[in-house]
Amino acid sequence: MPNKIISMAVIRRLPKYHRYLKELLDNGIHRISSKELSEIIGFTASQIRQDLNNFGGFGQQGYGYNVGALYGEISKILGLDKKYNAILVGAGNLGQAIANYSGFRNAGFEIKALFDANPKIIGLKINYFDILDPEDMETFIKENNIEILIICIPKNGAQVLAERAIKAGIKGIWNFAPVDLKVPNGIIVENVNLTESLFTLSYLMKEEY
Amino acid sequence: MPNKIISMAVIRRLPKYHRYLKELLDNGIHRISSKELSEIIGFTASQIRQDLNNFGGFGQQGYGYNVGALYGEISKILGLDKKYNAILVGAGNLGQAIANYSGFRNAGFEIKALFDANPKIIGLKINYFDILDPEDMETFIKENNIEILIICIPKNGAQVLAERAIKAGIKGIWNFAPVDLKVPNGIIVENVNLTESLFTLSYLMKEEY
Repeated sequence: MPNKIISMAVIRRLPKYHRYLKELLDNGIHRISSKELSEIIGFTASQIRQDLNNFGGFGQQGYGYNVGALYGEISKILGLDKKYNAILVGAGNLGQAIANYSGFRNAGFEIKALFDANPKIIGLKINYFDILDPEDMETFIKENNIEILIICIPKNGAQVLAERAIKAGIKGIWNFAPVDLKVPNGIIVENVNLTESLFTLSYLMKEEY
Repeated sequence: MPNKIISMAVIRRLPKYHRYLKELLDNGIHRISSKELSEIIGFTASQIRQDLNNFGGFGQQGYGYNVGALYGEISKILGLDKKYNAILVGAGNLGQAIANYSGFRNAGFEIKALFDANPKIIGLKINYFDILDPEDMETFIKENNIEILIICIPKNGAQVLAERAIKAGIKGIWNFAPVDLKVPNGIIVENVNLTESLFTLSYLMKEEY
């Protein structure tokens, strides 16, 4: 892989390419031009060529893209050719929704346990997941080679939780708490902020009507 | 409001300003310079001045921003000074997590009912929400002045659902199904694609390690 800096805008488009290429494969389509791909994905053909050129230029002039090869390459670029062990803290509705989404497991993300501070559910199994005591999180991270922490607790407590997990060895955080975590260099945080998304919707609706 | 086109990048930063300004107010801070704001939010001071200038320039040279006034203005810009009626379709874990998040209601988004195709739960009440039959969605939208459809069903069925709701009169869609909805001009769609977010995390982790 190039050491060249790829912009976040390009990176954020890659999962979309991945998704559409998978659909093409599922429909038995093995070859596609940037123009056809453009019609399906909604990016311009020139944007598509430019995006994919960032990663070495997969297309052949006059032939187009080999869908399977491109899908495989983008999977690799996204790091989906390896497995990740994850834990999830906060086994409420949101936490359970995420834990039970089979698509994440199929893509190589395995949630090894859920943690929740509610003593009424600690020790139970919910849909095959053990609910463990957050007190035991550090030991679990170390013993199970956990790389990803998924935070599904409210914002209070999220920062302290992240710090504890980082100390224990996790490398990435998928954060659903509405707070900007402060983490050391080298630790990756990806936020899903539902309120920000909803407020964007209301802004755009207000502008339209 | 200006008719000037504001870039999506600026718009997506506004909810973050809104969140931090709320925290400042909650902490009794009523005046702040762009430099101080920069230290808290993590954007550069010049970015902050530029962003806020898009909406008329709130700050005063040498005084800084009046936190309460700025918070109020940004709330208005985001369309949070009005109320929205919403319905949510798909009352699984994710749907329930969203329906029960009090922050949305406090911000003016009121979910009037949940819809789910599962006959076992139609007619029940879950946490004060009536679970209704999706067959009755159009009537409900019309009779209750519903503007926002929240889609929490899997991708199959999301497009048809959106079309039915649009025909019945909704203006905005908050879409959690991993599919790009095709909608007429003037209908706003805001997507939350969890898989795309997770794949971005794995890309960044792969680059780091």
